[in-house]
Amino acid sequence: MPQSAEDDLVCGVLQGTGTLQRRALSKVITLLESTRQDHRLRAERIMEALLPHSGKSLRLGISGAPGVGKSTFIEALGMHLVREGHRVAVLAIDPSSAVSGGSILGDKTRMERLSVHPRAYIRPAPACGIPGGVAQRTREVMLVTEAAGHDVVLVETVGVGQSELAVATMTDIFLLLHLPNSGDDLQALKRGVMELADMVVINKSDLDALAAARAQAQISSALSLFRRPAGALAWQVPVVRVSALRDEGLADLMRLISLFQTQACENGRFSRRREEQNKDWFWQQVDAGLRAFLMEHPRVSRNMARTEREVAAGMTTPSVAARQLLTFLDEQGWRS
Amino acid sequence: MPQSAEDDLVCGVLQGTGTLQRRALSKVITLLESTRQDHRLRAERIMEALLPHSGKSLRLGISGAPGVGKSTFIEALGMHLVREGHRVAVLAIDPSSAVSGGSILGDKTRMERLSVHPRAYIRPAPACGIPGGVAQRTREVMLVTEAAGHDVVLVETVGVGQSELAVATMTDIFLLLHLPNSGDDLQALKRGVMELADMVVINKSDLDALAAARAQAQISSALSLFRRPAGALAWQVPVVRVSALRDEGLADLMRLISLFQTQACENGRFSRRREEQNKDWFWQQVDAGLRAFLMEHPRVSRNMARTEREVAAGMTTPSVAARQLLTFLDEQGWRS
Repeated sequence: MPQSAEDDLVCGVLQGTGTLQRRALSKVITLLESTRQDHRLRAERIMEALLPHSGKSLRLGISGAPGVGKSTFIEALGMHLVREGHRVAVLAIDPSSAVSGGSILGDKTRMERLSVHPRAYIRPAPACGIPGGVAQRTREVMLVTEAAGHDVVLVETVGVGQSELAVATMTDIFLLLHLPNSGDDLQALKRGVMELADMVVINKSDLDALAAARAQAQISSALSLFRRPAGALAWQVPVVRVSALRDEGLADLMRLISLFQTQACENGRFSRRREEQNKDWFWQQVDAGLRAFLMEHPRVSRNMARTEREVAAGMTTPSVAARQLLTFLDEQGWRS
Repeated sequence: MPQSAEDDLVCGVLQGTGTLQRRALSKVITLLESTRQDHRLRAERIMEALLPHSGKSLRLGISGAPGVGKSTFIEALGMHLVREGHRVAVLAIDPSSAVSGGSILGDKTRMERLSVHPRAYIRPAPACGIPGGVAQRTREVMLVTEAAGHDVVLVETVGVGQSELAVATMTDIFLLLHLPNSGDDLQALKRGVMELADMVVINKSDLDALAAARAQAQISSALSLFRRPAGALAWQVPVVRVSALRDEGLADLMRLISLFQTQACENGRFSRRREEQNKDWFWQQVDAGLRAFLMEHPRVSRNMARTEREVAAGMTTPSVAARQLLTFLDEQGWRS
């Protein structure tokens, strides 16, 4: 009886402990990540039961170029958090997974202590998935881990493509990791990513204390030229030196994170950000669904490649092409 | 006979000269900016006739905070261009117009020489318009001025809200204007706008040469920390000192603009950028049209406010709400 199987999973996530809960959690996430329609429907019913119990975590996004030491940082931060009594979930969005089948976090041995800690749950990025759909699944996985009682969710991504935007728009705080080189060697930051950062962490500061201090000063100075969009109020993005390997600077970082959270809660920015994220996420999916309807129409899908080519080449204006398409859909009875 | 009136306008734009062309241009733009359906349809027919003659200009976006001297800069740059034999069109996107009815560029006396020059055409931002629709109209106005033979189009905006993104995504080069203060007084840049800039201009450099040089060094140094998104290749955003009032630095700026254009043409970025812009613009309008269809449905529009509230508050997941809406539309026969 599938209904009862779903009830079991819901109970397992909400009331289970230890291995039992872990197993229920993993089963629900597997259903969520499945491309099978019946799995999706079961996952949705489970989500509806779990939803009232989600949302009560601090969501931390973490990004940085390959080699910046993300795994070591997450292991150290995660251990710091579990020692303080928190329950930590670690998720990942891997922009390469859809293409290469590769997956970050696949190698749990890189988080040796955290991966076996009873108050931590690490979920590797799905090995494959629909591009664009990966972030959507991760958002839902986040809600499930919250329902299971994790009060801090770390969402990791590697600094490539659009994945940083996806992570920043599903988390409460977005941390950007950086290496301690400075001067001309200063690792170039991708424009548009700095814009997303709520905090910058100079990781591996033990490698070269002088270089780390210089990088900190340079990045702080560069950041001081930028102000946040209106509404974000007066949060000057801090630059923090950390050595994840030596467990240095993490207490300071945690204090800043608390400060950010307190300020954001007090001025209402915390809940506003989540509300905006939810609404954007809803409309993204409605738009994507409508476009999918569109492409299911034989005549539209047959002609779309040509229309796009003509629009791109400037042979027709985007406005005229859009209006022609919409008029056709109107005739097909889309407008009721 | 409206058909012949449209032909007259098309001929006026394409073959007219002097006042005759100017008058035809203004009439077409008025039709484009009209909210009347019959005007829009006439404008579209005219656009289709003009389109093959458009696209052959360099499109320059110009932004900067109020007080940075945009009008004086555009007047000086525009005069520089017309003296070299170019025909210059000046357009504006005014994010405040939809709200206040106010309009930048409304006061043509601020461009005394350019506004009366036979090789220049200045079109103020429309005094009012549908938010979001303003940029769409401006894109089309740009095509019309191109068809009339203007080979440089300057699109101005004031540094507020989303208008910079709109201007950056309709132009080939995006210039950001800055004041010559430096150090702690350095005018804060809006994050996300620096990301869009292809060049930064320190305007009013005559005010304080030392401060201008310092601002130039500081901004250059900050920009050196950022690299462009992949595909943009090795264009390090230059910072140029200009005094529009004294007509200093404009020749240097023009050389940089030429260099940018040459490089972008050679590596294919110029045409790729335009193709992407056209495609984005098409899909934006399709999405907006589909959403409009959606909201015309009585039951959908009746329930949307509640759905959005519930989604924002986390009472339902965006995925579930989106799927419910799409399932309903499917039942209504949207999917064919």
